[in-house]
Amino acid sequence: MQFELTSEFLDSLKAAIEKKDATFLKDKLHDLYAPDIAIIFNQLDLEEAAYIYELLDDDTAPQVLLELDDDKREELLKTFSSKEIAEQLDNMDSDDAADVIAELPEERQEEVLSHIEDIEQASDIAELINYEEGTAGSLMAKELVSVYSFETVSQCIEEIRTQADNVDVMYAVYVLDNNERLIGMLSLKKLIISHPLARIEEIYEPDVQFVKTNTSSEEVAEFMQKYDLVVLPVVDQLGRLVGRITVDDVMDVIKETAEENIQRMSGITDDVDSNDKLWRLSRARIPWLLVGMCGGIVGSRIIGSYEEQIKIHPEMAYFIPLIGAMGGNVGVQSSAIIVQGLANNTLLGDNIVSKLFKELGVGLINGLICSLLIWGYAFAIEDWQLAATVSAALLTVILCASFLGTFVPLTMNRFKINPALATGPFVTTLNDIIGITIYFLMGRMLYTFF
Amino acid sequence: MQFELTSEFLDSLKAAIEKKDATFLKDKLHDLYAPDIAIIFNQLDLEEAAYIYELLDDDTAPQVLLELDDDKREELLKTFSSKEIAEQLDNMDSDDAADVIAELPEERQEEVLSHIEDIEQASDIAELINYEEGTAGSLMAKELVSVYSFETVSQCIEEIRTQADNVDVMYAVYVLDNNERLIGMLSLKKLIISHPLARIEEIYEPDVQFVKTNTSSEEVAEFMQKYDLVVLPVVDQLGRLVGRITVDDVMDVIKETAEENIQRMSGITDDVDSNDKLWRLSRARIPWLLVGMCGGIVGSRIIGSYEEQIKIHPEMAYFIPLIGAMGGNVGVQSSAIIVQGLANNTLLGDNIVSKLFKELGVGLINGLICSLLIWGYAFAIEDWQLAATVSAALLTVILCASFLGTFVPLTMNRFKINPALATGPFVTTLNDIIGITIYFLMGRMLYTFF
Repeated sequence: MQFELTSEFLDSLKAAIEKKDATFLKDKLHDLYAPDIAIIFNQLDLEEAAYIYELLDDDTAPQVLLELDDDKREELLKTFSSKEIAEQLDNMDSDDAADVIAELPEERQEEVLSHIEDIEQASDIAELINYEEGTAGSLMAKELVSVYSFETVSQCIEEIRTQADNVDVMYAVYVLDNNERLIGMLSLKKLIISHPLARIEEIYEPDVQFVKTNTSSEEVAEFMQKYDLVVLPVVDQLGRLVGRITVDDVMDVIKETAEENIQRMSGITDDVDSNDKLWRLSRARIPWLLVGMCGGIVGSRIIGSYEEQIKIHPEMAYFIPLIGAMGGNVGVQSSAIIVQGLANNTLLGDNIVSKLFKELGVGLINGLICSLLIWGYAFAIEDWQLAATVSAALLTVILCASFLGTFVPLTMNRFKINPALATGPFVTTLNDIIGITIYFLMGRMLYTFF
Repeated sequence: MQFELTSEFLDSLKAAIEKKDATFLKDKLHDLYAPDIAIIFNQLDLEEAAYIYELLDDDTAPQVLLELDDDKREELLKTFSSKEIAEQLDNMDSDDAADVIAELPEERQEEVLSHIEDIEQASDIAELINYEEGTAGSLMAKELVSVYSFETVSQCIEEIRTQADNVDVMYAVYVLDNNERLIGMLSLKKLIISHPLARIEEIYEPDVQFVKTNTSSEEVAEFMQKYDLVVLPVVDQLGRLVGRITVDDVMDVIKETAEENIQRMSGITDDVDSNDKLWRLSRARIPWLLVGMCGGIVGSRIIGSYEEQIKIHPEMAYFIPLIGAMGGNVGVQSSAIIVQGLANNTLLGDNIVSKLFKELGVGLINGLICSLLIWGYAFAIEDWQLAATVSAALLTVILCASFLGTFVPLTMNRFKINPALATGPFVTTLNDIIGITIYFLMGRMLYTFF
C-alpha cells in the first residue's frame, strides 16, 4: 500500500541514471507520488537528482521540489536558471511558491519573480513573502474562491468555474460584503443542493472562524486542531479576506513543533535532523553538554567537601550514581506530565497548586516504595547507618525532584520560555546536584550522631 | 480570538449553576464552541456538569460529550439513561458514536443500540464497534456519498441531495463499479463545473488512494500526512468501499502518538495525563524508576569493587556524577536524533552504518571539547593522574554513549519495539553503568602504573 524504498529499487534507479535510460526511469517514476519520489531524491547525489528531475512531468516536478529536504532543495535550485525556477513556481500553490522563493538569496528572488509568466501568481508570491515567518500570513495561500453576498447560487457556480483553475482543492466558498470583508462561508455541499436562483445571503453560514495575518503559526495550528478545521480563512486588520490556510500546512507545523519539543527535551538547541552536517549536529548539542559538565563540576566540589568522610566510609561513594539517576528520572517524569498538560491547555491558573500537591503525592508513593527497597538492599549488604542514609536521601531526593520537575516548567512557561527545555538536561542537572547535597548531608549527620 | 477560560468566568458560571440561572448560562454557553465548553466541563464537578449539559442545544451537546476527557465522559454517561445516551449518539457521526458506545460496559451497549431511532445509524454503529481498536476500521465513519460510474452528473447531484443530510462535511464523491468496488473519486469542484448530463465514468479521477479496514491507525496517520490527504476511503478485503477517515480523526492519532513518545522517552509506561488519579500516575511511573534503581545498585557494586582505591584516592569519587550525567546526556541526544529519523522515515537500511559513523564523529568532536575542558579543570584542582583519568574516561564515555544512543533505538526498531523507549531511562541507565565502569577501570590503570 504505502511505498517503501528498498535498496534494490534504489540501485536499479541509480544504474538506469548511469546509463541515461530515460524510458525505464520515466516508467518507474510515473507510478509514484511526489512524496515518494522526494524520498528517492534524498538518497541521490546532486547530479543524479538533477538528471532525474528533468524527467518528471510538469505537475509532479514542483511537488517533488516541495517535498525535498531543505538542503537538497537548495542544492538542486542552485543548478537551475532563474527562468527554470520561475517555471516551477508557476505550477505551485502561492504559499508553497513563496516558501521556496524565500529560501533563495535576496538578489535572486526579484529575478525569479520577474520570470513568472502568470502575473497574478507573481504578485501573490510577492505579497506572501512579506509576511513574517511564523505568522498566519506566512502560512496562508492566496488561492480561494469568494463570492459577494448579493450574488445568486448560479452566479457563484459560474465564479467557481472561472476561478477553479487556480484552486486545486476547494472545501468552501467564502462570502464577502461590499467592502471585501469576510462575513461568512458556504459549503460546496450547500451550494450543490441549493436552488440555482437562491441568493447567497439567504443560504450562507455567518458563523465562520478566522484568524488574522499576524496570528502566530502555533496558535493557528492549535486553533485548527481544536476546532477540527480543514481550512481557515485569514483576514487583514480591516477584516478583509486575504488568504486561507489548509490543514496540510498546519499538520507540518504540528509535526515540527512536536519534533522541536522532543529535541529541547533531549538537550539539543537547534532544529537538526540526522541528515544535517557533522558540525551543525555538534554545535546543536554542545551547549547542554557544557551545562551538564558545569553541573558535574559543582557536584565534584560538593563531594570534595566530604573528602574526610569518604576516606572513613568509602561505601558512601557507592550510591552516588543511584541518588543522581533517581533524581534525574523522577524530575524528567514530573516535568513531562506538566509540559504535556501545558501543551494541551489542561492546566488552569487555579489548579496549579493542586497539581503540585498531586505530584508530591506521586513522589511520596513512589519514593516510599523505592526507599524501602533500597533500605532492604543496603541493610543486607552494608551497615544500618548507610541503609538509613541512602533510603532517607532517596526519599528526599525523589520528593525534591517531583517538586522541581513540576515547578520549573510551570515557572518557565510563565516567563514565556519553552517549558520543554525544563524536561531535559536542565532539570536532570539540577536534581543531580541537589541529590548529592542531600545525600552527603544526611550521611554526615547519621555517621556523626550514631 | 481563541477562547481562554479565566477563573473569573469559571466562577461566574459556577455561581450561576448554584443559583440554577438557566438564562444566564444558556446565553454564555451559546457563544462558545463545543471544544471550549468541554474545557469548562473538565473543571466542574459531576453535578454541575450534568446540570449544564441539559442546557446545551441538541447539536452542541453531543459534540461537547465527544470533547470531554475520557474519565469525565464516563462519569457523565453514568448519570444518563440508555435512552438519553441513544439520543446523543443519534446526533453524532457514526465513528464518534461507535467510540462512545465502545466505552460503555458491554451489557449496556446493546440496550443503548436498541434505543437509537435511526435504524441505519444503529446498524452503522453496530458494524463499527466490531473493528479492532487501532485499525482503519475503528477510525472510519460510515457517512459518505458514493455514486456508480454509469450515472450522470445530475443523478449524482440528486444522490448528494438525498444523502447529504447524513454527511456533515463532504470533500469528494466516491465512484463505485457494479460490484460496489471503489474505482475512483470525483471532487465536488469537478462536479460543480461539469455538464449535468456528463457521465461520471467520463469525468472521474481513477487514481484514488485508499486503505484497508485492517491497516493500523499509525499507518493511516502517516499515509494521510505524507500525501496531504483530507479524507481517505477505506475498503474491505474485496475492495468494496465501507467507510472514510477524515483528517481530524487522524490529527488526534498523530497527537496521541507524539504524546505517547514523549512519555516513553520520559520513562512513563502508561498513557496518563495530569488529571489522572494519583495511584494511576504512580503506577505508570514506578516501573522505570525500579529499572533505574537496579542500574544504581549495579553501579554501587562496581564502585564497591574499587573500595581500596577510593580509600587511597577519595578524589576519584568526586567525578562520578559528572561521568554518569554526561553519558546520559549524550545518549539521550543521540537517540533523540535517531528516533526522530525513524519516525520521519529518513533512515534507510543502507545508510545506518553511515549514521553510526556520523554519530561517532559528533561524539568525537563534542567529546574532545568536553574532555579538554575537564582536563584543564581537574589538572588545576587535583593531580595529573586524576585529570588524565577523568578526561580520558569522559571521552570514552561520550563515544560509547553516542554509539549506544544510535545502536539501541535502531535495534529496538528492528525488533518492533518502540524506539522512543530507548531515549529514556533505558539508555541513561545503561550509560551510567558503562560510564562508571570505564572511569574506574581507567583510574586503576593510571594510578597503578604511574
